[in-house]
Amino acid sequence: MKSHTKHLTFHTRERMEFVNITSEVEAEVLASGVKEGLCLVNAMHITASVFINDDEPGLHEDYKKWLEWLAPYDPSPQRYHHNRTGEDNGDAHHKRQVMGREVVVAITNGKLDFGPWEQIFYGEFDGRRDKRVMVKIIGE
Amino acid sequence: MKSHTKHLTFHTRERMEFVNITSEVEAEVLASGVKEGLCLVNAMHITASVFINDDEPGLHEDYKKWLEWLAPYDPSPQRYHHNRTGEDNGDAHHKRQVMGREVVVAITNGKLDFGPWEQIFYGEFDGRRDKRVMVKIIGE
Amino acid sequence: MKSHTKHLTFHTRERMEFVNITSEVEAEVLASGVKEGLCLVNAMHITASVFINDDEPGLHEDYKKWLEWLAPYDPSPQRYHHNRTGEDNGDAHHKRQVMGREVVVAITNGKLDFGPWEQIFYGEFDGRRDKRVMVKIIGE
Repeated sequence: MKSHTKHLTFHTRERMEFVNITSEVEAEVLASGVKEGLCLVNAMHITASVFINDDEPGLHEDYKKWLEWLAPYDPSPQRYHHNRTGEDNGDAHHKRQVMGREVVVAITNGKLDFGPWEQIFYGEFDGRRDKRVMVKIIGE
Repeated sequence: MKSHTKHLTFHTRERMEFVNITSEVEAEVLASGVKEGLCLVNAMHITASVFINDDEPGLHEDYKKWLEWLAPYDPSPQRYHHNRTGEDNGDAHHKRQVMGREVVVAITNGKLDFGPWEQIFYGEFDGRRDKRVMVKIIGE
Repeated sequence: MKSHTKHLTFHTRERMEFVNITSEVEAEVLASGVKEGLCLVNAMHITASVFINDDEPGLHEDYKKWLEWLAPYDPSPQRYHHNRTGEDNGDAHHKRQVMGREVVVAITNGKLDFGPWEQIFYGEFDGRRDKRVMVKIIGE
């Protein structure tokens, strides 16, 4: 069994931002030499997500508006008790649960075995500082 | 290490529909010959989900009503900017994020290592055409 | 390839409760002898979750309040048709979908390859009886 580990680093300009990381993950699959296996991609921070969906700017606007309805940004400690700790990112911990922490993608014939529109995104909900994404590949 | 790959195809009659695919996945576990390992099952389309829950019709009605509250079907480009592309399925991309893209299930002694009520469902939110589900099994 | 299987059992005092199970999972990683691989942790019950987030009591209060807004407890069969079966836990099946069934964590150098604040939680939404969590580890 082969294994391959990579920590990618991202720094978003916006508080909430989606970054297409598909080509970075594909490069790690190639580097791993794995032909048949599984590829785990997860946010290493708890106010961020890794998810798979469409690379369409209108959809990304829709997600941002929807997540803001589901868990509005509010730095006060009234809405989010988490903000009593001095943090202002209570909302981001909620948004991350909706969009998920991780994806697991099949590797077949040395490539990510994707449907026609699947793209991997790093979703940041409390950005403007360095954040890491784990890529772990196992297989043969 | 053994690996096994299968793309299942489904065609739902309804726009939103849940299909129990547990027996199809179990057949792939058997075909793989894997006794100890992991089984990834994921939607290959980005307006669909694979999830594990109860096979109870009342619960499925509840899920449909709840998802419609969280992300109502609306083909106009006002609510979902995604629909400016000519699509009418902005809602389906949101429903899929709530229900998830994939499940990973343990294989123990050659079988899916399930709790008492766990069943695997394909969840379709923009149906009435052919859609694919990936089953990837690795182990020994 | 090595594999390791453990079913953990929990019994919560409250209907909704979050239990930090990181040290239990770490003990299984050690017991497995796996240095490079993947660790699946999933709820075996369909009204419970396994998720990764912060071990901060204010955040956990926030999650409980938020999940109660998204899917209120209501034992009547009017809001949740699932409760026509005689169950009173329709809400719990919804809460579990928001928080997720499972996490997959990378194992690197014999340890869970975590970001700085990642902790694994068992999330119970219909507690006060014995519930099981699966830990499955594969690798080398």
